[in-house]
Amino acid sequence: MTQYWSSSFTLGILGGGQLGKMLLDETARLDIHTAVLDPSAEAPSVGRTNRFVQGKLMDYQTVLDFGRSVNLVTCEIEHINIDALRQLEKEGIPVRPSPEIFATVGNKAHQKAFYQRHGIPTLPFFTFETKAEMLEKLGPLPVVWKAATGGYDGRGVAILRNQEDVDAVPDVPGLIEDYVGAKREISILIARNPSGETQAFPAVEMVFHPTANLVQHLHSPSSLAPELAARAKEIAEQVAEKFDLAGITAVEMFVTPGNKIYVNEIAPRPHNSGHHTIESHFTSQHEQHLRGILDLPLGSPRALFPAVMLNILGGPDTGAPIYRGLVDIMKEEGVYPHIYGKTETRPFRKMGHITLIGATLDEALARAERVRNMLTVNGQ
Amino acid sequence: MTQYWSSSFTLGILGGGQLGKMLLDETARLDIHTAVLDPSAEAPSVGRTNRFVQGKLMDYQTVLDFGRSVNLVTCEIEHINIDALRQLEKEGIPVRPSPEIFATVGNKAHQKAFYQRHGIPTLPFFTFETKAEMLEKLGPLPVVWKAATGGYDGRGVAILRNQEDVDAVPDVPGLIEDYVGAKREISILIARNPSGETQAFPAVEMVFHPTANLVQHLHSPSSLAPELAARAKEIAEQVAEKFDLAGITAVEMFVTPGNKIYVNEIAPRPHNSGHHTIESHFTSQHEQHLRGILDLPLGSPRALFPAVMLNILGGPDTGAPIYRGLVDIMKEEGVYPHIYGKTETRPFRKMGHITLIGATLDEALARAERVRNMLTVNGQ
Repeated sequence: MTQYWSSSFTLGILGGGQLGKMLLDETARLDIHTAVLDPSAEAPSVGRTNRFVQGKLMDYQTVLDFGRSVNLVTCEIEHINIDALRQLEKEGIPVRPSPEIFATVGNKAHQKAFYQRHGIPTLPFFTFETKAEMLEKLGPLPVVWKAATGGYDGRGVAILRNQEDVDAVPDVPGLIEDYVGAKREISILIARNPSGETQAFPAVEMVFHPTANLVQHLHSPSSLAPELAARAKEIAEQVAEKFDLAGITAVEMFVTPGNKIYVNEIAPRPHNSGHHTIESHFTSQHEQHLRGILDLPLGSPRALFPAVMLNILGGPDTGAPIYRGLVDIMKEEGVYPHIYGKTETRPFRKMGHITLIGATLDEALARAERVRNMLTVNGQ
Repeated sequence: MTQYWSSSFTLGILGGGQLGKMLLDETARLDIHTAVLDPSAEAPSVGRTNRFVQGKLMDYQTVLDFGRSVNLVTCEIEHINIDALRQLEKEGIPVRPSPEIFATVGNKAHQKAFYQRHGIPTLPFFTFETKAEMLEKLGPLPVVWKAATGGYDGRGVAILRNQEDVDAVPDVPGLIEDYVGAKREISILIARNPSGETQAFPAVEMVFHPTANLVQHLHSPSSLAPELAARAKEIAEQVAEKFDLAGITAVEMFVTPGNKIYVNEIAPRPHNSGHHTIESHFTSQHEQHLRGILDLPLGSPRALFPAVMLNILGGPDTGAPIYRGLVDIMKEEGVYPHIYGKTETRPFRKMGHITLIGATLDEALARAERVRNMLTVNGQ
């Protein structure tokens, strides 16, 4: 077996944002050498990797050249040149997870069709190529509209409640999905390695920001009853198997008031909904991703403590970030701020997160309430 | 107050070994920019800091130039040019902890005299400048001989049991100390910030390698009864106050069979005896050091779990390290290997460590027994 640690083996990571940065903490602990490709010379991963390459993730030749310079390629972002990854695979350079997963997941209509084809529960939907086609097929409101591509952090998704909402929809390919109002949203981080071993972290529950459609906080464990949590885990395992995953994947699911579970979407990489694992689980999602892509034994997915995670989102002004209240937060026991190191803050941009642990979930939630409004970040 | 995070503030770290590398995990989490000075272009911290400078830590001009290029200087090693640090302080660049601490601690005779002068309990001793002076003052054997300078990881220390041992002692300045046979050895990591806040981690107990005079494993909590642990903490606080410490310091102590506690020596920096804090305490020793030197509020020193730490020591052959058994160890729950990334292994060199946590100390110790002989490193 390859000796990954303290050797000439180099792991190539496409994307140098906060997810890459946190993955680099795990490669450092095991002394696995890395190279990172990112368009920004000020990306959070700069100064944390053995070799940083500045370049465009959507450029075929850039990704190909980068991939050829390393021993195995993984991604911390989905917006990457998939054809270059396919070419790398042909040349014998492993890409984990497979480029085909990114191809499917990168188009929401294809992703939904995949679930339908494989018997994975997902909310009823129809797809369309043009707005005219959408209008033709549209039934009673409300429904959820999603652009097939280009959506991220709330862009490209809308609830259509009335004619005004329908008129505002752009003329792009997409899908219309049933609207479920009072639903819970959960995420299961699941890891798989090429040997076929699978491990799922316990479900976490996401609470969304009322206007920004971003996760405001999440808590683990979720409020799901044991049978429902077991059912969600089965669905996540089904997703992992059907996609033939390698590394970690976030499987985001809806739970309806009638306790039906539907897969919303997946992210085949470390994910915002798994940050709490760093402090509150035996194994972090980043370590688990590393184990999965390198075909190492997967780590224990068990929780050590209940935890809450708060995103630190940019305030109204764009500019160099000024953080207020961080010193006060540092006085609290069991509170772990992570500052990603982005050089520009923008409204609702993810600038960092805070994990709060507790002996009980109530204790962690109480800590979260105390610190929620302490820390702000805004541009100057 | 200075905004340390995501700003132009740069922390300068003298030494780029494993202690520096682990400190860099904490600066990364808070996005505090760093520069590291180390003589080796392959030091463990390379690729983990914003700016790496290759240069000699004992060279006056090198240390001075490095210090002038940063906003605050700290050290992960004691073998540094103290005059350059004194000059930096004169120029208004904070050095934490103070250079005078390194001056005192760097000479074991001066260190012992410091304890005596400040009423800090330490084993009875006498100092000498030459071997002739030592022989003149020498009483009955056994005693412990220590060179005043140059000792590290078992070099420069010897138990003199017979005339042969006495003959083998080199003619250098040093000290002779009472020998205590069946003693326990403990360490308390204590942090202080310039505002005067002090926080002590619970005592850890060190178990030594039978021949190499290196820590083989340590466990936390120690076996000390509560009153004795409280007394050890008081002594550590006395040390922190008398030295006017900033950042973290390891206070190593002997506990005699009659339950007397004596300070053996201190290391005014993160220390091998504090590695377990990374996984098993609310705050790691490295984060606590960072908080201490930057005059931030100190973190909670409380333990989350009992823990055991095993050093990974180099096998008999010098060369590029080959690790055996790491994959097997990764199958165990609650077991955290750290590979420092040294490019050459030597007999008994610290190549890494493993932290093992458990719901009880017995569980952590059982895990340690299981993995102790699984992982080896040797040169090729």
